[in-house]
Amino acid sequence: MQAVSENTVVADATLDVEAYMLRLGQQARQASRQMAAASTAAKNTALLAMADAIDASRETLHLANEQDLQQGREKGLDAAMLDRLALTPARIDGMIEGLRQVVALQDPVGAISDMSFRPSGIQVGKMRVPLGVIGIIYESRPNVTCEAASLCLKSGNAAILRGGSEARHSNQAIAECIRHGLAAADLPAEAVQVVETTDRAAVGKLITMPEFVDVIVPRGGKGLIERISNEARVPVIKHLDGNCHVYIDDKADVDKAVAVAENAKTQRYGTCNTMETLLVAEGIASTVLPLLAERYHAHGVEMRGCPVALPYLGDEAIAASEADWETEYLAPVLAIKVVSGLDEAIAHINQYSSAHTESIITEDFDRSQRFLREVDSSSVMVNASTRFADGFEYGLGAEIGISTDKIHARGPVGLDGLTSQKYIVLGQGHIRQ
Amino acid sequence: MQAVSENTVVADATLDVEAYMLRLGQQARQASRQMAAASTAAKNTALLAMADAIDASRETLHLANEQDLQQGREKGLDAAMLDRLALTPARIDGMIEGLRQVVALQDPVGAISDMSFRPSGIQVGKMRVPLGVIGIIYESRPNVTCEAASLCLKSGNAAILRGGSEARHSNQAIAECIRHGLAAADLPAEAVQVVETTDRAAVGKLITMPEFVDVIVPRGGKGLIERISNEARVPVIKHLDGNCHVYIDDKADVDKAVAVAENAKTQRYGTCNTMETLLVAEGIASTVLPLLAERYHAHGVEMRGCPVALPYLGDEAIAASEADWETEYLAPVLAIKVVSGLDEAIAHINQYSSAHTESIITEDFDRSQRFLREVDSSSVMVNASTRFADGFEYGLGAEIGISTDKIHARGPVGLDGLTSQKYIVLGQGHIRQ
Repeated sequence: MQAVSENTVVADATLDVEAYMLRLGQQARQASRQMAAASTAAKNTALLAMADAIDASRETLHLANEQDLQQGREKGLDAAMLDRLALTPARIDGMIEGLRQVVALQDPVGAISDMSFRPSGIQVGKMRVPLGVIGIIYESRPNVTCEAASLCLKSGNAAILRGGSEARHSNQAIAECIRHGLAAADLPAEAVQVVETTDRAAVGKLITMPEFVDVIVPRGGKGLIERISNEARVPVIKHLDGNCHVYIDDKADVDKAVAVAENAKTQRYGTCNTMETLLVAEGIASTVLPLLAERYHAHGVEMRGCPVALPYLGDEAIAASEADWETEYLAPVLAIKVVSGLDEAIAHINQYSSAHTESIITEDFDRSQRFLREVDSSSVMVNASTRFADGFEYGLGAEIGISTDKIHARGPVGLDGLTSQKYIVLGQGHIRQ
Repeated sequence: MQAVSENTVVADATLDVEAYMLRLGQQARQASRQMAAASTAAKNTALLAMADAIDASRETLHLANEQDLQQGREKGLDAAMLDRLALTPARIDGMIEGLRQVVALQDPVGAISDMSFRPSGIQVGKMRVPLGVIGIIYESRPNVTCEAASLCLKSGNAAILRGGSEARHSNQAIAECIRHGLAAADLPAEAVQVVETTDRAAVGKLITMPEFVDVIVPRGGKGLIERISNEARVPVIKHLDGNCHVYIDDKADVDKAVAVAENAKTQRYGTCNTMETLLVAEGIASTVLPLLAERYHAHGVEMRGCPVALPYLGDEAIAASEADWETEYLAPVLAIKVVSGLDEAIAHINQYSSAHTESIITEDFDRSQRFLREVDSSSVMVNASTRFADGFEYGLGAEIGISTDKIHARGPVGLDGLTSQKYIVLGQGHIRQ
């Protein structure tokens, strides 16, 4: 019994992680019952107490974050990664402000809608209810811990948060503030649990215990999300690519077309709602493309055009290949294609788009209506920049992510997306005949 | 090259099934684009033409069904199975009537809601859109072919239908009528495809091609649904057990309590919304249980009581075991437990229920509100029989199933459950600052 092989140790460690995650799951399920019944006042009290705790813990948060940054530098993380990891004073302000904004949001839980009487005499309608337990898996940004916790809490859910291992000291320090807030409102401490182990087996377990976890929201790169979707046995709210399109119709107003197509590409390059392919009707290509090429050139955007577009794009533009139509550059690069008209534009989008966000620029009513209806993406726009596709711009107040799925929630997911509706039936002793 | 081993043959057959299913998937995806854009008038024309085709094909349907019944008898199917398989004249009437009812339902596609202006000037709202391609997997009832096709069609989706192998002649005959209807409205024939192979690998492929199938709806026994949920790589709208509860509070009206608890158990035994466990507050047990025991006894319902309930249930009642609290009998058997009050009732339900349908009988307002809010089931009722939990009683007009899932749709799933909402944004050249 003394000779313990390395294999046994590994097996035991895995068992421990499994047991640990099962315990978190059980506790979360238990806490979710209390959270579902928690009053709006209690939830808001907790959120405000969290904000106060964070404000009072700036020094602690800074020291914890310094530990993570130090280890990150030693591990050779690149500058972008270290930047995402940093809890600057401005980001701490942002966390506090975010919590207060969530307090101001309407509580979705318990909202009753569509009550109507049926011929049998019963009254039937729907009540909005929390999903139960939400697992959030994210990468290096520690402020996500606070943001995700606040949205799950306000929507009456329990949360299990699994952040990146490189942010673990920061995440634990934030978790301490969250616990403080929950305690201040007499809500269960297990309503928000931050996974403490950095063992990757923890994620594997989290996404395969449907008895304790109702939905997983991964936040991070496409690789993370695809891996989780493939292995999960729990529903996943996915946010995959944003290969977004603007289509300039030949009945477009040229000024609007140029303004929107410039903004959609150049306002920010690294965001999921940035335009990646510009489609232009052949009837207007010779008018708008030279104007746009000038703008893109000034911004330093690399243009990759189809053979018809190229002559209008200036000397530095290069030929697009098939792969360009499928690519989310997240960079100052743009694919440009001339199409015969609306039909070809819609067909191109429905073939190549990641179903995130697309916009038509047109003054023609019928074409705008067809585009709205026939383009199968989570956000479809008329005469507006794709950059508007986010929860704040849409008035959701906050956003846990943007869904590129088709069931449950499409597009920016706010508090409502973390809830569902059950049926309620009121009678006076009604029985079925 | 001549010596082909049995293994090779199997592999080739599997490849053929895979290729066949991929073709169905591609065709369905293609057709789904046209269906999403189809007018309400075209969809209704197709449904009415299907009804006419079925009416005109009674003899063909009867002969095809006779083939299935004959083979079923030869295979030794039991009487219940053969009954489900039979396309009696009344069931054919039911199919025709069902199609006409779906025509009368409001088209959910394209409905726009919640349009509002944002501070940026854009106008944001939601548009209801089809899910895309729906795979339906069902067992022996051939009339499901017609019903599922009609609901998918009206909601603007393409459907791939995989019925039980024992009903294949009947299903193909119905499919012929469906194709006739689609053709009459100039809708693509591939909008509804009935899988022709009875190879089980077809199901395995259908549930693992997310690129062509957006959601799977299995209709059948728990075994089928669990198997599909475990293996699917596509979202599944699940309908698992209906372990439903009625809780008689000590502030219940005795007449209502007896009427509802009798009806919920005895109106039909084999349905998912039938009560399987009766909970009674101890303060009212000695009043209602003897009255109910008399009714149940008269109906031949076997009673299994907890130690406190047993003395009130008569000589034939037996002691309940832990397993009884978890069991969906689908039979004239009822578990009965006396609880201390509302808290214990809610805790018992949230622990043992399958989250399908539960009802409280009480005259107390606060308790009714707590029960509605804190019971985590897809239908929660006050003073009404659990038997009301279905799409027709709720006014959905038709139902593709009852979801015991928490995301996307809970409870009876009608046309809306086969759709989702995308965001639409209207501007006049708006760009993001």
